[in-house]
Amino acid sequence: MDFFFRPRGVALIGATPNRSRGGNIILRNALRGSLCPVYPVNPRYTEIEGLTCYPSVSEVPDPVDLAVIFVPAPSTPDLVRQCADRGLSGVIIESGGFAETGAEGQRLQEELERLARERSIRIWGPNCMGLVDVPAGRILSFVSPSIWDVLLSGPVSLVVQSGMLSAGFLIDTMTHARSGISKVCSIGNRADVDECDILEYLASDPETGAVGLYLESVPGGRRFFRILRGCDKPVVVLKAGKSERGARAALSHTASLAGSRELVSGGLAQAGAIEASDFQEMIDLCRCLAAYPRLDPALRGRIGVITYSGAAGIVSADFMENTGLGLADLGPQARERLESVFPEWMPVANPVDLYPAIERQGPDRAVQTALAAVLDDPGVDGVLLHLYSGHPALTPELEPLAGIARRSGKPVVSWLLGSREPAHLYRRSALDLGLPAVCGLDRSVACMRAVFEHHRLWAQAGAPEPEREPLRLPQPQLGLIERGCGALDEHEAKRILSCAGIPCAAERIASNEEEALQAARELGYPVALKGLAPGVVHKTEAGLVRLDLGGDRALREACRSMTGSMAEGGRLLVQRQISDTAAFIAGAVRDPQLGPCVMLGLGGYWAELLPGRVFALAPLSGSDATLLISRFPHQRLLDGYRGSPPVDRDLMGRVLQTLGDLILGFPRIREIDLNPLLAPGGVPTVADASIVLDNGDAHCAAEDPS
Amino acid sequence: MDFFFRPRGVALIGATPNRSRGGNIILRNALRGSLCPVYPVNPRYTEIEGLTCYPSVSEVPDPVDLAVIFVPAPSTPDLVRQCADRGLSGVIIESGGFAETGAEGQRLQEELERLARERSIRIWGPNCMGLVDVPAGRILSFVSPSIWDVLLSGPVSLVVQSGMLSAGFLIDTMTHARSGISKVCSIGNRADVDECDILEYLASDPETGAVGLYLESVPGGRRFFRILRGCDKPVVVLKAGKSERGARAALSHTASLAGSRELVSGGLAQAGAIEASDFQEMIDLCRCLAAYPRLDPALRGRIGVITYSGAAGIVSADFMENTGLGLADLGPQARERLESVFPEWMPVANPVDLYPAIERQGPDRAVQTALAAVLDDPGVDGVLLHLYSGHPALTPELEPLAGIARRSGKPVVSWLLGSREPAHLYRRSALDLGLPAVCGLDRSVACMRAVFEHHRLWAQAGAPEPEREPLRLPQPQLGLIERGCGALDEHEAKRILSCAGIPCAAERIASNEEEALQAARELGYPVALKGLAPGVVHKTEAGLVRLDLGGDRALREACRSMTGSMAEGGRLLVQRQISDTAAFIAGAVRDPQLGPCVMLGLGGYWAELLPGRVFALAPLSGSDATLLISRFPHQRLLDGYRGSPPVDRDLMGRVLQTLGDLILGFPRIREIDLNPLLAPGGVPTVADASIVLDNGDAHCAAEDPS
Repeated sequence: MDFFFRPRGVALIGATPNRSRGGNIILRNALRGSLCPVYPVNPRYTEIEGLTCYPSVSEVPDPVDLAVIFVPAPSTPDLVRQCADRGLSGVIIESGGFAETGAEGQRLQEELERLARERSIRIWGPNCMGLVDVPAGRILSFVSPSIWDVLLSGPVSLVVQSGMLSAGFLIDTMTHARSGISKVCSIGNRADVDECDILEYLASDPETGAVGLYLESVPGGRRFFRILRGCDKPVVVLKAGKSERGARAALSHTASLAGSRELVSGGLAQAGAIEASDFQEMIDLCRCLAAYPRLDPALRGRIGVITYSGAAGIVSADFMENTGLGLADLGPQARERLESVFPEWMPVANPVDLYPAIERQGPDRAVQTALAAVLDDPGVDGVLLHLYSGHPALTPELEPLAGIARRSGKPVVSWLLGSREPAHLYRRSALDLGLPAVCGLDRSVACMRAVFEHHRLWAQAGAPEPEREPLRLPQPQLGLIERGCGALDEHEAKRILSCAGIPCAAERIASNEEEALQAARELGYPVALKGLAPGVVHKTEAGLVRLDLGGDRALREACRSMTGSMAEGGRLLVQRQISDTAAFIAGAVRDPQLGPCVMLGLGGYWAELLPGRVFALAPLSGSDATLLISRFPHQRLLDGYRGSPPVDRDLMGRVLQTLGDLILGFPRIREIDLNPLLAPGGVPTVADASIVLDNGDAHCAAEDPS
Repeated sequence: MDFFFRPRGVALIGATPNRSRGGNIILRNALRGSLCPVYPVNPRYTEIEGLTCYPSVSEVPDPVDLAVIFVPAPSTPDLVRQCADRGLSGVIIESGGFAETGAEGQRLQEELERLARERSIRIWGPNCMGLVDVPAGRILSFVSPSIWDVLLSGPVSLVVQSGMLSAGFLIDTMTHARSGISKVCSIGNRADVDECDILEYLASDPETGAVGLYLESVPGGRRFFRILRGCDKPVVVLKAGKSERGARAALSHTASLAGSRELVSGGLAQAGAIEASDFQEMIDLCRCLAAYPRLDPALRGRIGVITYSGAAGIVSADFMENTGLGLADLGPQARERLESVFPEWMPVANPVDLYPAIERQGPDRAVQTALAAVLDDPGVDGVLLHLYSGHPALTPELEPLAGIARRSGKPVVSWLLGSREPAHLYRRSALDLGLPAVCGLDRSVACMRAVFEHHRLWAQAGAPEPEREPLRLPQPQLGLIERGCGALDEHEAKRILSCAGIPCAAERIASNEEEALQAARELGYPVALKGLAPGVVHKTEAGLVRLDLGGDRALREACRSMTGSMAEGGRLLVQRQISDTAAFIAGAVRDPQLGPCVMLGLGGYWAELLPGRVFALAPLSGSDATLLISRFPHQRLLDGYRGSPPVDRDLMGRVLQTLGDLILGFPRIREIDLNPLLAPGGVPTVADASIVLDNGDAHCAAEDPS
């Protein structure tokens, strides 16, 4: 990919002397910053912008390894062939008119994809804004040349599908000094080069400290998540099209399926990425994470708030609720040092309301003392620092504060207010000094949260993993998976799960009433009775489930009625009744985009009402399982709700890992569903389960004409 | 209150010639803008800033009706007395050193409160920044005089407890052209004048279009909500101290209890106020609501998104999820008009991605055509308009757009990006043209949501109300309430509820097994059996509840065991078993701050796990009850979850209204708890209930020594 970022020579195909056209703007941008030769190509001109214009790429002299193409879509395949013939390594096609415009464009784009494969030439685009590399001063894009006046170099690189985001938004970001920028890669329709390729490149780019990714879909699927996981730098992802209507809009925008929100979120968390919901938030989070990519392992989110406004302190505390951050309790040393600048009447507390101290001591002494005192406190892991700019009596010098922050090794995020012009200059200084400063109080808390969330995900992923036995199933179960079709019955499914090591409720198969009574006596009352009838998946609806049978008489009655309901025959399943506990569902699915995934969710009556499903990509390491469990939104249910014993998280983790191993190890398993998964005595135990096998195979079709 | 806002003459007590001190800054601010005489008062000087300085307020000539006091706290009571003697109507005490500093300050503040009452002089403050009136050019505050350079007049008035918020934040807001401002009232410790007084004034202030209130507590309680409800203008409230830690910080900040989050939120919604979570959000919401205080009743939140970036359109759609807003489906006429500017290959959809049209037609023609087409569509209720400033090829003229928006009578909120300087000027123009423009995409959706939420609350509150019969109880129940003590037993409680018109499960009292069997036969099996033992409140824990008894034998067994558990004697309650349905809780409480309130929540197993309680202040009108039900977070449970019939919302509303009438009508009722409130056949029906009466009365104490 290096030839895209550091080409030895660039041909610009579609160059034009008309200064209002993209083909001219790209040329001027390329010339202005280029550290390599630039060759305009257009058969209609002999000279453009004072340079020799070549009739075709084959005439272009050496060195040249990259072409930027900006011509009507139908001409592009031929031109790409010419580039391949000329021996170029890659092309960036910035013109539109491809998959985003309908069937004919789609066909053209597929032709490009084929060319990339067959001719070993990398194609970036089409329908994109190309590349802006701020530190190198290289712009291969038709972005307005006014961008040269506002370039602000920094550690944040962006990968975006959308054009606007790589132009207007970039100018907005840099002129408002929201962040300095390294590379902006606008990848458009992704005929060949996609976010995976770019992310791989940026992961080893020394000028990139954090990556922001705007994505409408994840066609790279598992490869994307693998690269993301391997990326050593903080990555912030804005996944658009999460809502149903947003997904439909995304589909018409770049013709790409948005993918299930929960699955993508699960994959992102598992890979240690942070999600953003808004463009500006994405930049702010990137900026902060670039400043604090790694924290001391001991730090865990106890925050000091230093403010000149009691109100802002309180609202900050409100924003911290349910973020994993908490207000730190200040220790005696910090208190003493704060008391040295506080007026006597004022008790020291966190949030540290510094206004009276600033009035007495001036802003420099007050804020420096407070920042050092709070950061030195071993009970404080980071500081939210509220700054006001442009008021001599209130505004501290930034440089000493940045020094104190740096020396502490703890993250400091500042919230900045002030009169427009001084606030802008102050923010620029903060940026230069490496002190992240954001304009919204809510955003400052979101940034601090992201720093600690990233830290937590990173620490968890790096935890040592115990060796795991490979999954082995006995021959009968292997055979069932190999030769079965469609949905296995409950007992068969649970036998497979049991053999794989997942605890299931004790149960016996009975073929008649007497066997059922015998089984119940062995298991102990109360029992549940189920009818396993061939082809019946929804047992409850078919009247084939009777719970809480307290004795022989009730069981007999249930057996009779159930045998009556199974006109086609079937078996009886007698199961030890698990008394009321927290109910979960767990499962494994094979997603068309993301492949084998594992799910944990809320079970029972409420399962459909409440959002509660979390996903991870199989296989799950121990820390993946821990993370998945920690992402389950109803943690109190795991902690021993309403007198239940706490759910054993290690055992739950092992259940989830095993589900992943099953779906990954046996391609014929289409899905596994543990519903409900109860937790008597804290032990996750399957009360009902189904396993659905592929029935598309020839030998299934023979047995099952459906 | 008019003398605070339009004084005929102002004495400034604590004036000083030292230009760095507050007592001088207040004077200069007052002089610069004053439309009335200003009299410095300080016995140590004869002249300040070229004015005669008076030794005391008694020497100040007429006309004078207001004093601003800025002296050390201990001197203030005497000075207030002098002001009262001189016949002043009010004082603004801006000095600190009162309740916020501890016991001695608290005592001083109480003295001020007493003076206000006894001497009929209104006291604003202490510990506040006073008043900034931008349209009048009047500043009675020690805010930095640099504020005069940035005054930006507009329709938004603010009421704040905090000092910073009325100074730094104000300058930030105006210089960034986030909104023009009318009045800013910093009310500090609220010894006398409070948010109620100010809100009452602003409600009839012609220069105020919307009010933003920052509050850490609601000491005004029911008066506050009554005034809020009567206020004809949009009000946005930022209630700080909602989290536990935030509430603790608020307590130390202005020594005021934060109040239950759910109760305050309920009261705010009932009064039609919109909640904000952040200072800047509060301003943005106020700005938008001032632009669109009332909508055509037919409008209901179907939104068109007009954007120059497909990505921004998709993310907007994502943000709209769960806001009550939805993407509008465009009708044929709008589509046709959009097609006239779209390139042929591009299908028309909402979000309307206008970039290709802007490229072809130029920004003015494209955006004007699109805005008019979408706003004219009868299926569109409002438009989110994405604008980019400072790029000739992309930036449309604002004035025609503002005209189109205005003529449509539908709300248009724009999201603005662009290079810093042109973006600022563009934003200023938008502000002048009455077109709300915000900088965050998330914020633009939040603003649109607030406009429609306010519209909905307003429309609901204005719905015609049927006459309601006054609540009448029969004599025995009246007597029970009059003479009972502590918790009534379940049967007594349900008799009261039944008589008040709240449906309860059919039940019979039995004093022995035979009567119980007879009752069960009358009610029909299955039944529940409960033991009503004197003094036992938690029946389940005491083994006094047996559910789902299917026949005589089970009932007999239950009677025997229960009679055994009631060593002290008691009655048996046989109740028709209500089969599994959605479970709610409902109740009424008497809050120390807010008085009688009604609650609706989630019942059953999950009640403690899930946030689900919503409140309203009693009494409840029909529309209050409808609103309360609509605020219940698990609406699907009301709509007929898992095969249950939908809950009859009218009947549910009547239950809630009756609960309000009971707690309001009978001061001896301390709380009512319907738990669970089930809905067999969709009819809200009490399965268990308790009513707790006051037991602090003398006649209770005699009976019940606890």
